[in-house]
Amino acid sequence: MNFDIAYVSDNSIEETLRYKINNKTKPIGALGTLEEVALRIGKIQNSERPVLSNPTILVFAGDHGIAKKGIVNPYPQEVTAQMVYNFLNGGAAINVFCKQNNINLKIIDAGVNHDFGEIPELINAKIAFGTKNYESEPAMNARQYNAAIKKGADIVYQTHKEGCNIIGFGEMGIGNTSSASLLMSYYTKIPLQECVGAGTGLDSEAIKLKQKILSKAYDKYTLSTDTDALMYYGGFEIAMINGAILKAAELKMTIIIDGFIVTAALLAAHCTHPQVLDYCIFAHTSGEQGHQKMLDYLKKEPLINLGMRLGEGTGAAVAFPLIASAVAFLNNMASFETAGVSGSE
Amino acid sequence: MNFDIAYVSDNSIEETLRYKINNKTKPIGALGTLEEVALRIGKIQNSERPVLSNPTILVFAGDHGIAKKGIVNPYPQEVTAQMVYNFLNGGAAINVFCKQNNINLKIIDAGVNHDFGEIPELINAKIAFGTKNYESEPAMNARQYNAAIKKGADIVYQTHKEGCNIIGFGEMGIGNTSSASLLMSYYTKIPLQECVGAGTGLDSEAIKLKQKILSKAYDKYTLSTDTDALMYYGGFEIAMINGAILKAAELKMTIIIDGFIVTAALLAAHCTHPQVLDYCIFAHTSGEQGHQKMLDYLKKEPLINLGMRLGEGTGAAVAFPLIASAVAFLNNMASFETAGVSGSE
Repeated sequence: MNFDIAYVSDNSIEETLRYKINNKTKPIGALGTLEEVALRIGKIQNSERPVLSNPTILVFAGDHGIAKKGIVNPYPQEVTAQMVYNFLNGGAAINVFCKQNNINLKIIDAGVNHDFGEIPELINAKIAFGTKNYESEPAMNARQYNAAIKKGADIVYQTHKEGCNIIGFGEMGIGNTSSASLLMSYYTKIPLQECVGAGTGLDSEAIKLKQKILSKAYDKYTLSTDTDALMYYGGFEIAMINGAILKAAELKMTIIIDGFIVTAALLAAHCTHPQVLDYCIFAHTSGEQGHQKMLDYLKKEPLINLGMRLGEGTGAAVAFPLIASAVAFLNNMASFETAGVSGSE
Repeated sequence: MNFDIAYVSDNSIEETLRYKINNKTKPIGALGTLEEVALRIGKIQNSERPVLSNPTILVFAGDHGIAKKGIVNPYPQEVTAQMVYNFLNGGAAINVFCKQNNINLKIIDAGVNHDFGEIPELINAKIAFGTKNYESEPAMNARQYNAAIKKGADIVYQTHKEGCNIIGFGEMGIGNTSSASLLMSYYTKIPLQECVGAGTGLDSEAIKLKQKILSKAYDKYTLSTDTDALMYYGGFEIAMINGAILKAAELKMTIIIDGFIVTAALLAAHCTHPQVLDYCIFAHTSGEQGHQKMLDYLKKEPLINLGMRLGEGTGAAVAFPLIASAVAFLNNMASFETAGVSGSE
């Protein structure tokens, strides 16, 4: 699937935006990072009065072949499906934060190892009942990989058609920090040992075992193209987020980047389309140890760093009001001229 | 004025709260700092279902004798009054952020060097038309100091009576980073040079001059009690925030601490009543260089660090949704039991 993504670089609007920001009734630069966020969103929308329309978070859920063994994950695989029901019933953290901050929430079955039947509130994009275990064979085949990318892109296209211009992604998938660690090591070239962490709560002995298992899987394959990594090590939810990110950038949407798993999907997107970064606002630094290194690799500093490591897109959801603050000051603050306030001498 | 402030330490509710937090459908600790904020507010309210009622920010404005010289401040003193009009007209950053986050906003004339006449939206608590210049005499006399403390306390009492249980403070006062630097050095014993920064935008030469002027003023007086510092170096707005903080703690309100100036007022409150810290949530780390050192002294880490240095309570206002997220997850997330989700193994 091809994506036609433009770099964000309209200098005329940048100058207009900087003038507008600097003439608000405040010392120059006094709103710190909020000023950078306002500038970025103005540039993405090529407007000096950007708006945030129908903010939406898409949560993709998928299962991982490796999780059946129960070694890389302290929670059983069934929790993926159980948490999807929790999302649908409104009881999960992402429900609470989206409701609080007026963010639309869509739940997508990307490939959970459970038959949900027909549930109108659940978007059925199931590729298979979980990936294969990459200890013995690639997580997905080429057909599945392409289908996942396309599904992610299609759901973003539909969401954009419904009037959304700012989008975040979340995930649920027992075992998916393992996938993300493998992808991280592949795309950043940081040694795998440094990419593997506690996930949902492994102790240090269990982390060592997880590192050993993943090292073996990592060394098993010789990849021929950069997209192979996503096919061999990915989850369906991660591949779908990859397609979703690329489509959102193509549609010039503002993309709110969540934590470790979503940033792994972004690394894959960035590898093939570096210009996606122009559309991204980094919401939070995850407590999962590899995330800071991913951010260093991308040279990005998120809005908040509260030690959250829950996934589901919760970092994107709780940071959203800060993004809204940036757009609000740009549109609604008075200027020195209109307020009759003296400037600095 | 006396304040009767209790330490927050009801162990039975702490245990109940920890159990509740740990049984939400998430790995233990996965909401990071939000869990600590939920615990703190639950303890302050002595409730496992805390609520945030009528959140309010009080912005105190006052002028400083030293600012008339125009050496410690790049903006002229008139800007204090001009910004009060900007607040009243809804054009300042604090207006925008309070409106965005549904926070009530009250503007108080603590001692601006301007006659506002009768404006219903402006709370008239004027102590004088600005403080004296502490280069030659104490900023205020004992009567003015006591009146400022009482006014701050009274406005908080009234706000609490109106149903508010979470309150933040902001300030406007050309020259008030100088006051805050002097107070910081006095209460933390950190050398004054390290407490003096750029304020609203001095360059490095001008900072050196500011340091020299303030050093001379600092060495001029021998203080006999810890409250003297606030009287000799304070602004009326800072003294009023001091009284406001102490009253809010007495009333068991949650206090949102903003940046450099508000934390200077807190240092004074903490010196006489260390238990006030139990009621405080630190909103943001200011870009004003001394603030980080104040926070280190108090051993506190705020929710956000976005390089903001605007004052007005803007840090408290933009961080407020994160505090609301903490209370929301505590009250509205499902538990493992109610959601039928398996725990970790």
